[in-house]
This record gives sequence, C-alpha cells and structure tokens, in this order.
Amino acid sequence: MKEYIEKNKERFMSELFSLLRIPSVSSSSEHRNDMRRCAERLSELLLEAGADNAAVYETEGHPVVFAEKIIDKKAATVLVYGHYDVQPADPVDLWESDPFEPVIRDGAIYARGADDDKGQLFMHLKAFEYLVKSGKLNHNVKFIFEGEEEIGSPSLAKWAESHKEMLRADDILVSDTTMIDESVPSINCGMRGLAYVEVEVTGPDKDLHSGHYGGAVVNPINALCSMISSLIDENGRITVKGFYDDVIELDPQERAMLAKAPFDESEYKRFLGVDAVRGEKGYTTMERTGIRPCLDVNGIWGGYTGEGAKTVLPSKAYAKISMRLVPAQDFEKITELFAKHFESIAPEGVKVKVKPCHGGNGFLTPVSSKVYKAASKAIKEVYGIEPVPNRGGGSIPILADLQKILGINPLLMGFGLERDTIHSPNESYLLSQLFKGMESIVLFYKYY
Amino acid sequence: MKEYIEKNKERFMSELFSLLRIPSVSSSSEHRNDMRRCAERLSELLLEAGADNAAVYETEGHPVVFAEKIIDKKAATVLVYGHYDVQPADPVDLWESDPFEPVIRDGAIYARGADDDKGQLFMHLKAFEYLVKSGKLNHNVKFIFEGEEEIGSPSLAKWAESHKEMLRADDILVSDTTMIDESVPSINCGMRGLAYVEVEVTGPDKDLHSGHYGGAVVNPINALCSMISSLIDENGRITVKGFYDDVIELDPQERAMLAKAPFDESEYKRFLGVDAVRGEKGYTTMERTGIRPCLDVNGIWGGYTGEGAKTVLPSKAYAKISMRLVPAQDFEKITELFAKHFESIAPEGVKVKVKPCHGGNGFLTPVSSKVYKAASKAIKEVYGIEPVPNRGGGSIPILADLQKILGINPLLMGFGLERDTIHSPNESYLLSQLFKGMESIVLFYKYY
Repeated sequence: MKEYIEKNKERFMSELFSLLRIPSVSSSSEHRNDMRRCAERLSELLLEAGADNAAVYETEGHPVVFAEKIIDKKAATVLVYGHYDVQPADPVDLWESDPFEPVIRDGAIYARGADDDKGQLFMHLKAFEYLVKSGKLNHNVKFIFEGEEEIGSPSLAKWAESHKEMLRADDILVSDTTMIDESVPSINCGMRGLAYVEVEVTGPDKDLHSGHYGGAVVNPINALCSMISSLIDENGRITVKGFYDDVIELDPQERAMLAKAPFDESEYKRFLGVDAVRGEKGYTTMERTGIRPCLDVNGIWGGYTGEGAKTVLPSKAYAKISMRLVPAQDFEKITELFAKHFESIAPEGVKVKVKPCHGGNGFLTPVSSKVYKAASKAIKEVYGIEPVPNRGGGSIPILADLQKILGINPLLMGFGLERDTIHSPNESYLLSQLFKGMESIVLFYKYY
Repeated sequence: MKEYIEKNKERFMSELFSLLRIPSVSSSSEHRNDMRRCAERLSELLLEAGADNAAVYETEGHPVVFAEKIIDKKAATVLVYGHYDVQPADPVDLWESDPFEPVIRDGAIYARGADDDKGQLFMHLKAFEYLVKSGKLNHNVKFIFEGEEEIGSPSLAKWAESHKEMLRADDILVSDTTMIDESVPSINCGMRGLAYVEVEVTGPDKDLHSGHYGGAVVNPINALCSMISSLIDENGRITVKGFYDDVIELDPQERAMLAKAPFDESEYKRFLGVDAVRGEKGYTTMERTGIRPCLDVNGIWGGYTGEGAKTVLPSKAYAKISMRLVPAQDFEKITELFAKHFESIAPEGVKVKVKPCHGGNGFLTPVSSKVYKAASKAIKEVYGIEPVPNRGGGSIPILADLQKILGINPLLMGFGLERDTIHSPNESYLLSQLFKGMESIVLFYKYY
C-alpha cells in the first residue's frame, strides 16, 4: 500500500479536498443542497474506487450513500460506516484559514471535517481502491455513509430497518474516533451514549425594565442559572433522580486494564490551557470521560447579548444541555428523567419547557471479538506497537442502533488524534495518520 | 393649553413622529449618524418652539442639545433634562409594527422611544411653545437633552462640569419616569442607582468536543451558572461581601408613607403573566423595587446557540449583570466589591474577568421642596387627585451627577405608565398622558 500511496498522493489529496470543500453542515437547513452534493460526490468516488454499484438513497432527512463489492456470496462481509456531514464551523472568526477551503500546514490538513469524518472515511475508500486494483480484496465490502451523524442520525435507523437485507454483514468497521497517540495506538471498545435537550425558562411574558421590576420579579436567567447549578452536586455527581440507576460500576480488574493507557495529566492540562481538571469524585480523568456519565451545558442564551449595556429583565432564557451516558443507560429513559427533574426544580414564578434534541445509547465491543483481533494485529504491524483497548467518551448513537437492527458489532478503529480538535475551530488531520490509517485498513482485511 | 393642543394636534404628531422615526440607539456604534440627526432635529424644534438659541454641542460621545429662553436675568430658572437616545429595539420580531415607524393604535403611540424619552421630553417642548406663544412664560427655561442616557451618560457629567455657568438653574425638571396609574398620579422623589458589569468566564483555551472531554474539564457555562446562582441567597439577599454596608433601613413611618401608594399584587402578576413574585425576604413588592437594592442578569451567552444540536464544551461564557442601588450606595464602590467577590468565587479550572459597563448613584428629593410642591399642585389640578410621592426603581445616574455638579435637585415628574413597556417590544405612550403631561407642565410653571 505504501508505494500505492506514494504514486497516487496528489490524486488522493484532490479527491479528499473535493469532499472537504462542500460545507455539509447537517444541523442547518440552509445547507440542504450541499448535503446532496457531498453524497453524490462520495458515490462517484466509490464507483471510481471499484464498487460494483454505488448510489444515493433518500431518507426522511439527508440522503444516505450505499455501495458494495461482492467478491463471493459465501465470503465474510464487512460493512464500513462513516458520515459525510460535519459540525457547524462557528465561531468562524477563530479559524486561521477558511474552514471549507482545505490547506496543508505542518503535515496536517486543516478544514472542517478533515478528521471528523471525511478524512477518516476517505481512508476506507482508498484502502478499498488499492485492494480492488491489486486483486487482494478477500472479503465482501459494503459502505454506508450517512449525512446526519452530527445531529444524532434521526433518519438512518429507520432507513436501515427497511434495508436490512441490503446491509447484511458480519461486522461493522468504523473510523470516526481517536487513538490515544501516534506512539500509543488504541482501539475503542466502547462509546458513551448521549441525551441532548434544549430547555426554555419563561419568567414574565414580556421583556421588562430591570430598574422598574428588578428585585420583585423572578428573572428567568437567574432562575435558569440556579437550576443548572443544582444539576451537579459538590461531588461532581448528577442530581437528576434515578440518573445512576442503570450505571454499571466497573470492577477493579476492568479499571486496572483501562488504566494501562498512558495518561499525563499535566500535559492534558497544558493542552487545554487550564490550571485544574475537575469531575466526579473517586474517578480518574480517563475514567470520567470513558466509563462515567456526565452533564454539560453546550450553549446558553437569554436577554441582551449585544454591544453595550441594556437594562432589561428578560422574559426568556434558554440552554442546550447534554448528558453523556454509559452503555447500560437508555437515552430515552434518561431524557424523561431529566425533563421530569428539571420541571420539578423550577422555582415559583417561572415556566419551564424541556425539548429533547437528540440522543442514542452507548455500547461495548469485546476485545475477544474477531474484528477487534484483526484490527489489533493490523495496527500493531503498522505502528510497531500493540494497540491499547480503551473507551471513547464521545457518542455515535447510530452505531448502537445498527448493532441492534443488524445484530452485529461495530468496531471503532479510529485514527484521529486529540490535536485534531474536531468540532472546534482549526480542525485538522495529520497526513501521517491518514496514510497509516489506509495501511492499517488494508492489513485489517488481510487478518480479518 | 387644552385648546392649543386641540388646534395643533396634527402638527404635534408629525413633529413627534419625526423624532421617533430616527433610530437613535446610543449603545450601537452603527447609529452614530442617527444620533446626530436626532440631536439636530431637536434643536430645530426648540428654536421653532421659541427658544432664544438652541444648538448641538460636541461631547466625547454623542452630542448634547442645549437651548434656553431667558425672560429676566433675575427670574428663577428651570433646567429641563431629557434624553433623545433609545434602547435597542431587539427582539425586533416581537414588535407588532416597525419600532421606528410610529403608529397610533387604541389611543396610544407605538414606537421605540414613544415614552422613554422622546415622548416625554416632547411634552416639555410643546408646553414651552405654548407658554412662549401665549406670553405666559414667567421663568427662565433651559433645556439639556443628551444622547447617552441609555448607556449611563458617560460624557454628559464631564461636559456639564465645563458648562456649569451655562447650565446654572434653580431646579432640574425631568419627565423620564412613570406614575403609578392615570387614576393614581404620583411623583418620584427618589431613584435607585445602578452598577452594571460584564463578566467573562474562560475554561479550556479552545472549544472542545463535549464527548471527549465532558466530565473531566470544568465547563465555563456550568461554572458561570453556579457563580451567578450563588450571588443571591435563599432570602433573596445579595451575597457580595459588604454589599449592604451603606444601605439605609427606612424607619416604619417612612415605609408606612410609601405603603400609601395603592398596589394590587394580583393585578401586577396578571400584567406580568407570572404566577408568583419573589424578592428579598421581609419587604413588599413596592419596597423591593423602590427602597431595596437588587441584582439581575440582563444577558447571558456562551457555547452553541444556533439551530440544532452541537456537542461542544465551550471555551468561554459571558453574562451582563446589573445591580440596582439605593441612594447611599456608591456605584463605584459596589462595582469594586462585586468584581472582588466574583473573582473570589471562581472555581479552580476557570479564569474570570469582570468589566465595569456603566453605573450611577441613586438620589432623593424631599417632598418639602419648592419643585415638588409646584409639580404636586399642577398634577392635582389636571388629574383631580393629589399625587402620591413614591420611589422609582429605575436609575437615571446622570441626575445624581448633575445634582452634585450643579448643586440643585432634580424633580422627576414622569407621565409614563407601566403599560408602556419601555425597553421592551411594542413600547407605547398614551395620547391622554402625552396631553395631560403638557397641561401639567404648563401649570407647574404657573405654581413654581
């Protein structure tokens, strides 16, 4: 594969850049057409890479791209999942270069989606192309690329239900996560689930002059702040009633195994520019992001946020709040528990609305599985180090659904790095990881 | 005056509308030219009304309009203060008609500034015009109209210092406040002060993926909410150290006198659309807005506030926080106390900045004063009811400054009503109040 990469580097770049240039932001309706363009471009690339067939399929939301190469009906089949949609680029003014005009700086591609997930799914396209062109493809391969991962995949599960036969496979292979470090390759054997809601707090039915009413009327922003503040206690535990009912405590051996992953807290703090980390009492930083649930406010707004000073006592305040869940927690149950709790803590004088935004359940893939072993062997050969099994803090809700619908395990063979700052300004992806990823995927098929 | 109003109604409206059509929003730099246009229009109207001279004066900020009519150097002089700047119109989509295209509906003018303060200062223009035209003006009159009241009058105090002689007067007359009700006229004998700050809370130095970091990193929005929540205790008292040191407790007689003002709490709640009022324990609603300080968040923002769901753990969160102060409290001292306190409660893992935005001190004008008596008599004659002395919850910081600089008392003869919802969408001003105001001002000069 190495030589093949060398020979085709330039073409690879222009093909990947053609995907990165399309602002496929799934959360904003104005990009509806960009989503379609991106899906169609992907289906072109899949055909060029050697797929028997590739097509763009309608869903209730953004389209899905499906392609396949069947070498032998009796051979094992790998289903490659990826997503072509990206997070919004804002705050745009913090980008050093146009988020949708990819550039290469210091050996990395800078663009929204460079890593998450256009860059990572592109590795599969090119590994597949190589295997086909070199006649080394020894399994059937199917590709499913969706356009709604960043908004919780509202349509794919339903679509998959009605295309079970077409999607049938023995394992799901996904590159949409990070490894600990180039020098410490790792494979995610589990991901957290997600429950994401938007809350609205209404005080007076109109904006008021804060001088005339301040002190006598419940201010919805102050109320929202107090309600949010009460959601996490002094031990870093979430106060929503019943929240921890389904959380499975890992036994000491499991925790010890996960602790094998090297972690330098002072380096972690330096990277984040913070003087302290904080979280649930009794757990390490790695555990807090891997095996423990958490609650974060992702956005808050209300009142006057413009230039200068406006003395308003606002009518409404809003927040987007998400909870990361561990495998046994059901996101729909948690969303209900949250709504009930949040409404119950609303002070007199305000009304509260909780609107579920999206979510999904976490899951676990055993290290003893065939896919895990093949991936581990492949990565060891490319990196010269045996990868560490670890837990991803993020969520790919749809994978839990696909696991349920298709009855097969997803394996998260991710090549992203922390430095890629996905979802943030200046998202990037190292060329070295892009190419090592391609090599690892080729070897995965060899050992699978 | 009644007949004069009847005869000139149409002209009055077109003149007032010409002021209301100018979007003189002082807080936003894009309206710089509108500020000047509005000032120049005012100075035209003052000359047309009969001023000896009227001119637009430069300040370090928006211009000031000054005009005067000296009938006799030995006669008493009244200085009329008003402001031609207005609050921003947003949220604009909640307006039933264009905020800067005044319309008359159900006997009221709807427009930003219809009451606060273009409508109210216009009453003085027309009362003055009538007195001049009818030869009834028996005092010297000076007008000072500024363009920065809504942003705390940063320039006027300095300008007044250097124009003391020009501004010399015996009393300051101001119509920029409300009366309790048409059926319960009142005069403000005191106003609250204001200390307004903007706070910035920084967690990690970049936006992060909330899945990868959630649970281990201090989220600046959660931190800000907890800090804000802690600013007011369960008794509705502000927890800033030293905040109440200069607050004067009113004695029972004073409280009894203020309690004379009729107040219907259920009507108050109905008007606001709330099921409960809340505030400092041990005080009535009227006292909470009149004689007690308070703290309100006027705006808050951070993270992702757009459409859909973004799983971001943001780097920064902001809030605009203001405190209403009672006369003996010094806004600069309070601002310092707040900053010190707010920084002291910042949790490990975040950095805090407190930026003073604006402020001013409150003040009191004795009911025994000559101005108060004249105003009281005038209003009684027009409304047929003796006005109630009360305290305004709002702040006109500059009046405290002018009182200090010129050594004279301001009198707040306001004709606004609660229903006018100043600072909010659909601000309005009743024509009946506009015209009764003109009549009352004419009589004020008679009895002064």
